[in-house]
Amino acid sequence: MSQSRFSGVLAPVITPFNEDLSPDSSRFIKHCRWIVSQGANLAVFGTNSEANSLSISEKISLLDDLIEGGIETHSLMPGTGCCALSDTIELSRKAVELGCAGVLMLPPFYYKDISDQGLFNYYAEVIEAVNSEDLKIYLYHIPPISQIPLTLELIEKLAYSYPKNIAGIKDSSGDWNQTQAFNELSIDNFRVFCGSESFLLQNMKAGGAGCISATANVNPAAISSLCSAWQGEDAEQKQAGLDQIRNIFQSYPMIPALKAATAICTKDSQWLRVRPPLAKLNNTQLSELTAALSSVQFQMPDI
Amino acid sequence: MSQSRFSGVLAPVITPFNEDLSPDSSRFIKHCRWIVSQGANLAVFGTNSEANSLSISEKISLLDDLIEGGIETHSLMPGTGCCALSDTIELSRKAVELGCAGVLMLPPFYYKDISDQGLFNYYAEVIEAVNSEDLKIYLYHIPPISQIPLTLELIEKLAYSYPKNIAGIKDSSGDWNQTQAFNELSIDNFRVFCGSESFLLQNMKAGGAGCISATANVNPAAISSLCSAWQGEDAEQKQAGLDQIRNIFQSYPMIPALKAATAICTKDSQWLRVRPPLAKLNNTQLSELTAALSSVQFQMPDI
Repeated sequence: MSQSRFSGVLAPVITPFNEDLSPDSSRFIKHCRWIVSQGANLAVFGTNSEANSLSISEKISLLDDLIEGGIETHSLMPGTGCCALSDTIELSRKAVELGCAGVLMLPPFYYKDISDQGLFNYYAEVIEAVNSEDLKIYLYHIPPISQIPLTLELIEKLAYSYPKNIAGIKDSSGDWNQTQAFNELSIDNFRVFCGSESFLLQNMKAGGAGCISATANVNPAAISSLCSAWQGEDAEQKQAGLDQIRNIFQSYPMIPALKAATAICTKDSQWLRVRPPLAKLNNTQLSELTAALSSVQFQMPDI
Repeated sequence: MSQSRFSGVLAPVITPFNEDLSPDSSRFIKHCRWIVSQGANLAVFGTNSEANSLSISEKISLLDDLIEGGIETHSLMPGTGCCALSDTIELSRKAVELGCAGVLMLPPFYYKDISDQGLFNYYAEVIEAVNSEDLKIYLYHIPPISQIPLTLELIEKLAYSYPKNIAGIKDSSGDWNQTQAFNELSIDNFRVFCGSESFLLQNMKAGGAGCISATANVNPAAISSLCSAWQGEDAEQKQAGLDQIRNIFQSYPMIPALKAATAICTKDSQWLRVRPPLAKLNNTQLSELTAALSSVQFQMPDI
């Protein structure tokens, strides 16, 4: 398999905010460094990054800061898919210029009931405007939130039209049959990432490339361990361990819960902050989450 | 009623594009001038403007061009609601600085299952950041597309907290009971616009302020005529006339159809262009629309 495409585990990195709700670059860099140290890569500006609550200029600034802060570009798969074609082009071009090894691209998500032809035209315009073989696109399938499903036919048409640019997909449909169908596409070197480590072992067995999962923000080493040793005898046991942690987080609104866990483990309440329209966990939720994490001896010790 | 709030008819102005898909400022100004000459005002950057396919900088540039092109700011209600808090603040602040009489504000629409508190915090952050009594917000309720409904409780809380800033609402729910409920809110001088002229007579009878409707791009004089003379004896007849035109457009994807009608009537095929992910009408649709408009002797003669 070509080294120029991602495999393994990536975290859609949570974005810390200062008191004035501006992005907190220094905590962001620190968290990214920790995730990398635990064996995972960085899908910054994903859904769990509150990326769609950030402006293009804020994202570009954070990306510059990360790279200046020593994060290697081969670890970076920034989300660059926006509603506006011009925004997606600008951000994707910047990612390529900076040398990011890939980009995770949401479809445009405001207008609904969009035709495959319209979506194809959108991705084609982006690819032709950026005009670089270094643009490696991982499509982002997340119909529960984007409300814009990507059909198998669209993906094949894109991959056949732009084989050097279409590198894979993240499937956050939550439907294993869908992930399996992506794995069965006859597209050369097409990398399929499940959107939750709950499907990680299944995805690896089906020929998938790994996972890009919210909880890789807080549990990256264990998820990476299963991903790299999925053929080991203890794989089922490792999967069960991951599921136990995942289930705790899934009992809460995911993004505030990830930030709360980070705040708890790092004893840094600045991490609790979210940008509206999200709201942070209330005190009851915070106490319950603290107790739940404590009951499984969950730690993020080296951050 | 205060003159500082909108009433009557506004068009969510369609946005023309050049061959390279950049916004076409000169056709945009020309179309805006024509709409104003027909008695309607300008909700530029609405859903039908493909506003969510435009970047912030493109919108600011178009707004500058319109005003330099002689469009009066008392006619302007630009859409300024974006996914990202920072974008909404930037665009709303610009609209206020330029003197726009109001802004139409979508809720942030990427993240789903958002709490009323989260939405309240979002609008509150925008209002406090812009920090001007000249910011007159018309909330934009369009759950079929945004997937984010605005509850009566949220609207009341916002209006009571920021009485000088919360000026009204556009209801594109398509549900008359919802529009009626907005009209029954006990908020002083709260302007309720229906999102389609199909509900115009009903809305005026219920105490509403007017309508902000897609088809005001192509049929502004007739819609304005009913709006200003809704108590006249021929109101039902006028409503029936509006419905006949509306029904033609509703048989097609609305935005490409509005652009096609403009292209047909002005004999200017440049108007056909849309930005992906939208797709223009195919040739069959275009022929059918031409015939349908011809059968009702539909014209946009003075553009």
